[in-house]
Amino acid sequence: MTHAPVHPDQKSGRTLIGVGVGPGDPELVTLKTVRILREADVILVPYTEATTDGPGRAETIITAVAPQIAERIERVPFSMRERSGVGEKRKASWQVSADAAVTAFDAGARTVALATVGDPTVFSTFTYLRANVEQRLPDVTVELSPGITAMQALSAASGHPLVEGKEILALVPATVGMEKLGQVLDLVDSVAIYKGGRKLPEVADQLRQRSRQAVIGTDVTLESEHIITLDQVTDAQTLPYFSTVLTTPERTTTGGKL
Amino acid sequence: MTHAPVHPDQKSGRTLIGVGVGPGDPELVTLKTVRILREADVILVPYTEATTDGPGRAETIITAVAPQIAERIERVPFSMRERSGVGEKRKASWQVSADAAVTAFDAGARTVALATVGDPTVFSTFTYLRANVEQRLPDVTVELSPGITAMQALSAASGHPLVEGKEILALVPATVGMEKLGQVLDLVDSVAIYKGGRKLPEVADQLRQRSRQAVIGTDVTLESEHIITLDQVTDAQTLPYFSTVLTTPERTTTGGKL
Repeated sequence: MTHAPVHPDQKSGRTLIGVGVGPGDPELVTLKTVRILREADVILVPYTEATTDGPGRAETIITAVAPQIAERIERVPFSMRERSGVGEKRKASWQVSADAAVTAFDAGARTVALATVGDPTVFSTFTYLRANVEQRLPDVTVELSPGITAMQALSAASGHPLVEGKEILALVPATVGMEKLGQVLDLVDSVAIYKGGRKLPEVADQLRQRSRQAVIGTDVTLESEHIITLDQVTDAQTLPYFSTVLTTPERTTTGGKL
Repeated sequence: MTHAPVHPDQKSGRTLIGVGVGPGDPELVTLKTVRILREADVILVPYTEATTDGPGRAETIITAVAPQIAERIERVPFSMRERSGVGEKRKASWQVSADAAVTAFDAGARTVALATVGDPTVFSTFTYLRANVEQRLPDVTVELSPGITAMQALSAASGHPLVEGKEILALVPATVGMEKLGQVLDLVDSVAIYKGGRKLPEVADQLRQRSRQAVIGTDVTLESEHIITLDQVTDAQTLPYFSTVLTTPERTTTGGKL
């Protein structure tokens, strides 16, 4: 297989790579991400307070696909995103992650990777880490290795294509508020809603007002996968924060089964 | 590595799988897709008239990641999508693909895969193949293996995250028309525009009317990768049909470099 380097202009040979590890199933990692994990000198993985007793999701995925990297893994704090804007606690957690990357480079690392669930360009903390490191170490080259997103995993698992033909897809974080979500639902065909588990009653209300069908997935592609339809959602029911809601139009081209 | 089956309820043991092979770089294929390709009895790959003299993009990718499957590959016609709605020629090409799948199952195949560039749930012909096969062979189980999409590849290659924080992303096929595209640009933060290469002057006009910055990518992640900024697009310039346009908001959190 050819490994065509997308960015051959590496300035100093020091590279910070945002690595997408997909939604949970280790098989949904790309060959590129596996190679980068095997080659990286240091691999930063986020952990939340809830998972300090054991590995977080990103760490579980990468140790499954590349067990030999365990000793190069370094846990960095991960503050839950977007719950209350860019708070001081979140800024502090980015700072600690950036410090860890800079320390690794200062100690001689050529390649430092940050493993991020899903894709590093979709609601990822890598963006903030990168900005901080680029400011402090301008010679470091930044690269990204894409990963399968939660909406793709839910689409595949539920059998509802994200978009067909002339349809439009939107990816909306529930944190934008229900008025904005409603505007998007009125304009486009398919909508994936992230970070909406805790706001499920409000999200369900927006969907029902428009007679929309939807599926809601939690831990999709993991053993604990839980997928329900909007019809099964009861009043006031909530799900974990990182659940994904997917509404697609009624179609004549697909079997339409769940 | 664990291979947790997402759909253990296989009805007859006969399975049709839509397999995403990513945007072009063979390294952007997932481990799951590689395994399915290795295990499938027959692998259908689309070809267009333009590529009948050699392998199409999907075939090039899959033979790079799994050379041993070459003799199980069968080319099926692929009519360019959405240029003129669901025409008779396109319907005929789906029928031929479905016939090939049914013939393979009738001949004893347990697993038939269709390799599709990008993700099989994003503007993929797999949807139509699936509907046809499900109607004729109701015992066949359908599965999907996600793939990295062109918008993710362009985001990674250009360094512009698709979405951060409370931003909204939309994926719009240029075939919806410029009025609708304009409405989406007015409502959301980041927009990926597919199938817009031939309509680049009109798309560029919509972006410039709103003082939007954008990058435009063709063959992203391939040797022939070509990425330009909106500023570099001259009047009346067009690009290949399957080029991707990505506009993201100005951000303070990212380096913002291209």
